[in-house]
Amino acid sequence: MKTTSPIQDYLEQLHARCAPEKSGAVATYIPELAKADPDWFGICLVTAGGSVYEVGDTRQEFTIQSISKPFVYGLALEDNGREATLERVGVEPTGDAFNSISLDPGTGRPRNPMINAGAIATAGLIEGKTPASRFRRILETFSAYAGRELGLDETVYRSESDTGHRNRAIGHMLRNFDKLTSDPAPTTDLYFKQCSIAVHCRDLGVMAATLANRGVNPLTGRQALRGEYVESVLSIMGTCGMYDYAGEWLYNIGIPAKSGVAGGVLAVLPGQIGIGVFSPRLDAHGNSVRGIRVCEELSRNLDLHLFNRAATGKATIRLQFSGADFNSCHVRAAAEGQDLRELAKVIQVYQLQGHLTFVTTEPVLRDVLASAAALRYVILDLKRVFSLNESAGHLLVALVEKLQAAGRTVIFTHSEHLSLLRRMMKKKLNGEFSRLFRTFLDNDLALEWCEQRLLEHTRHDHAANYKAKPAEYDLLQSLTAGELKTVQALLKPRSFKRGHKIIRAGDAAREMFFLARGTVSVYLDAEQTHRLATFSPGTAFGEMAFLDGAPRSANIVADTDVECDELRLADFNSLGETQPAIKIKILEKLCLNLTGKLRKANRELSLFK
Amino acid sequence: MKTTSPIQDYLEQLHARCAPEKSGAVATYIPELAKADPDWFGICLVTAGGSVYEVGDTRQEFTIQSISKPFVYGLALEDNGREATLERVGVEPTGDAFNSISLDPGTGRPRNPMINAGAIATAGLIEGKTPASRFRRILETFSAYAGRELGLDETVYRSESDTGHRNRAIGHMLRNFDKLTSDPAPTTDLYFKQCSIAVHCRDLGVMAATLANRGVNPLTGRQALRGEYVESVLSIMGTCGMYDYAGEWLYNIGIPAKSGVAGGVLAVLPGQIGIGVFSPRLDAHGNSVRGIRVCEELSRNLDLHLFNRAATGKATIRLQFSGADFNSCHVRAAAEGQDLRELAKVIQVYQLQGHLTFVTTEPVLRDVLASAAALRYVILDLKRVFSLNESAGHLLVALVEKLQAAGRTVIFTHSEHLSLLRRMMKKKLNGEFSRLFRTFLDNDLALEWCEQRLLEHTRHDHAANYKAKPAEYDLLQSLTAGELKTVQALLKPRSFKRGHKIIRAGDAAREMFFLARGTVSVYLDAEQTHRLATFSPGTAFGEMAFLDGAPRSANIVADTDVECDELRLADFNSLGETQPAIKIKILEKLCLNLTGKLRKANRELSLFK
Repeated sequence: MKTTSPIQDYLEQLHARCAPEKSGAVATYIPELAKADPDWFGICLVTAGGSVYEVGDTRQEFTIQSISKPFVYGLALEDNGREATLERVGVEPTGDAFNSISLDPGTGRPRNPMINAGAIATAGLIEGKTPASRFRRILETFSAYAGRELGLDETVYRSESDTGHRNRAIGHMLRNFDKLTSDPAPTTDLYFKQCSIAVHCRDLGVMAATLANRGVNPLTGRQALRGEYVESVLSIMGTCGMYDYAGEWLYNIGIPAKSGVAGGVLAVLPGQIGIGVFSPRLDAHGNSVRGIRVCEELSRNLDLHLFNRAATGKATIRLQFSGADFNSCHVRAAAEGQDLRELAKVIQVYQLQGHLTFVTTEPVLRDVLASAAALRYVILDLKRVFSLNESAGHLLVALVEKLQAAGRTVIFTHSEHLSLLRRMMKKKLNGEFSRLFRTFLDNDLALEWCEQRLLEHTRHDHAANYKAKPAEYDLLQSLTAGELKTVQALLKPRSFKRGHKIIRAGDAAREMFFLARGTVSVYLDAEQTHRLATFSPGTAFGEMAFLDGAPRSANIVADTDVECDELRLADFNSLGETQPAIKIKILEKLCLNLTGKLRKANRELSLFK
Repeated sequence: MKTTSPIQDYLEQLHARCAPEKSGAVATYIPELAKADPDWFGICLVTAGGSVYEVGDTRQEFTIQSISKPFVYGLALEDNGREATLERVGVEPTGDAFNSISLDPGTGRPRNPMINAGAIATAGLIEGKTPASRFRRILETFSAYAGRELGLDETVYRSESDTGHRNRAIGHMLRNFDKLTSDPAPTTDLYFKQCSIAVHCRDLGVMAATLANRGVNPLTGRQALRGEYVESVLSIMGTCGMYDYAGEWLYNIGIPAKSGVAGGVLAVLPGQIGIGVFSPRLDAHGNSVRGIRVCEELSRNLDLHLFNRAATGKATIRLQFSGADFNSCHVRAAAEGQDLRELAKVIQVYQLQGHLTFVTTEPVLRDVLASAAALRYVILDLKRVFSLNESAGHLLVALVEKLQAAGRTVIFTHSEHLSLLRRMMKKKLNGEFSRLFRTFLDNDLALEWCEQRLLEHTRHDHAANYKAKPAEYDLLQSLTAGELKTVQALLKPRSFKRGHKIIRAGDAAREMFFLARGTVSVYLDAEQTHRLATFSPGTAFGEMAFLDGAPRSANIVADTDVECDELRLADFNSLGETQPAIKIKILEKLCLNLTGKLRKANRELSLFK
């Protein structure tokens, strides 16, 4: 079965629809650009998640030209920080054309880094010992964005250099105002080179998606720009990216973008998608005619406008349930189970999901605080949380402190991948860290920890060292005193040290056990990492062998020093001959027991459906 | 327990931190504004989900002034559409101050609706038979945004009107260029009135949150602006909202905003949050000094910058599982269950969540198309999908058509709340609609429908009219021929018409049934809306009574004409006396049966944990 994606189909239709658009003209200010085939036309869409869709001439190389400006600006921010960069180049749109000089009359500061003057001042901020190493850094950065090794188009570079008198003039004006602090020639040359890097349309798509993905190339996983500077680069593109067409661009298309005179257009919808278009015919503003048309259609057809967004907060709480609705896998004797049904109402589990930010964490805080009066334990399950930013971290730290002060405990599960949370807790909670930042690997362990604490002080038979008597064994509860005596005669007391493997997977099953003291746990694997269940005094284990006669299916290990009563299969079977009424009563109890567990499992399942 | 929210604490600290800022001056161009207490200071945060946090003088009324401009612009868009509105007012930032006239030299069109000239031209676009009704419409619209009835501050209005010579001049200039088409006086007057509407800081927060929530007031649920125009209003705020400070505002703060000379600032982070600040001291640009400071701190502390966004797509698929891992609640005889384990691998369930847009639906498409070769049925569960836009709708329609062409079936469950999806399917699929747009109320019904289709042609005993023989009854399978004969002698054949209630909740339990032909279903409620299970030939029902002797806990109804064998409790019990080995075998089989179901439920649970 070979089915093309409807997205691919759509892009092909879009390409066909826009291809007849032949207005505009190829740039001719340098001879090399004039050689472009005006019909070249490629479209590439790359999601922030790394899906690539492309159609047309997406592997035809051309020079990046002005599209280099935002990327070099990002590198300048990394090299100098925001403040020092802003001293040299402003951030205000000019309403002027791309080649206007637009220096602030008072300070000589270029109005923004997207006009040539601002871009040359920005190139002057790139660090490196020699001109060559400065250019190498730019080339390496661009290659990280594109996910492949890019190179210089020497012919275009020489052509740019031969004709770049206006830009040289700008360089000297900048030197005059001390916005360049040394000989402007190497910086102007660096600027010519950055504009002459060869890319293709797919590169533009991937570079755009890298900005959409907070600076991380979604195909290679490599960070091309520190996340904190992405917003600055996109802000500049949003207000100044399309020359004197910026207001209309944001209004109509609503996707921060940058165009180049070779016919490239790169557009970024933050968090969502990157777009690359290539078509060399330009309009009067110097923007690719088809490039604008494609972006307009994509924005309209795919509802991509930046400001067209549904409310994000409400999806954070994936699911919440009470500890009374859903227990740990600790199997308890009937009385204990009964007690927990009431007690465990003070445990509440919140499964969170997505990216935790201020806005997505706020509903969680609100809900937890509104419920906290009736709770003792709040379990926040972070398994499906992809990321957490500082403001969300602050809210969670404050929540832990507040609930602690109110006598409640907050527990985090599946939090290992969110190292920022741990760091922030450590910093804020300080000496109280290990006591207050309570984490468990999974919800089951967290639930069990809470359940144990709740049970501890309720009754005698929940005490850690309690020993159940045979009359208290769940499966023997419907026997008469005489019948119990008969069974007791068949029981053989056994003791196991903590850590002892009482039952081994694969062994023949010849006995079952009634647990009198301590706890045992069932593990599927020999390494004991995947716990299936834990049993408390009064319960039975290994009883399945009495029904199907199959070999043991799992390992059962003593969690503590343990005392049991063993009943051998052979004895149980002969009981069926001599005292069938007893065997029937035990089987009926087992059926009831299983039915109770099945009903509980179905109740739990209905939470998730 | 009384615990304040950490968010409230934070806002109070922010308020205390900014209160000492006393630079700037109260506007004095009209005497009424000069009367404001310069120390008034309120902050209000309202999430798009409707949580309100406020601190300081949030209920002190003041006049909305220029903050009225984006809201009147929104109403003008609703009244005239985008095209006609754009003919009268542009969308390019000017870099000029708020009171500059800034008409395009050629067309006389004001550059944008945030400068006074543009705002007066916009006021001229508001429909209404009389000046009074035009103002009433503005007031009603503002009230819908604020969620309370707003009124005019008559004193400020008279003061504005008495001193508004410059704005009257602008009105006449606009009339000169035909950007106002009738006497400018009533429109200038309308503009004075819209600026003199009294609001408080909390109103600004709620109005901002209404824009953040696609035009729907999150507290009242009322639509104040059609969703399609929200992006236009926010675009204008983003590029022109803060006068000649717009570029820096977007760069530093990154939240579309609008300020007014009475000291209000309103900022909107689309999909996330609305901010209102009130403090009357203004800077040289005419923006509230503390207002800017508060927005700066909020943006930095809460990571609110518009362009600082993590990737959104990957959270759409909440969970996916195969029909082999998770069956419908249709209880099948052992052989059927066995067959399904293999067959149902061709069913795949995708639980989707959040808002379906192009970018969030794309990963679903990609995953489904990549898996489709091995599948026959794709179930898309939309229960946790909040909304779906047109571009997502197009992708889903295309997916249905493509998979249909490839011989696969797409099924939607829980889709009733997404009426757009249904409308789009109907329009696109046309005559094929009812055949191709296959929906079920829930996953259980969808799974069962697929399972039935898969089983139908596999073996004789899956045929709709198949009759099981007693030797095939699950619970009797371990009996010898002689024992089976003994039990058969106790069985009483019963027939029930389709719809007959075989077991009623609350009745005493005196018998169990072996199902020979047809299906029966278990319902918790008398209205038969909540189905717990459905049984197939070969299975038993009503057997719990044999164990606990309690009254019936649910209703069991014949789905089809049904044939059963009834076994009375009294007969089963006497079997325990006379032929205990038979009773033991049946109970053992029942235990095994229950154990199988319990293991299955636990396997299913592990999918969700």
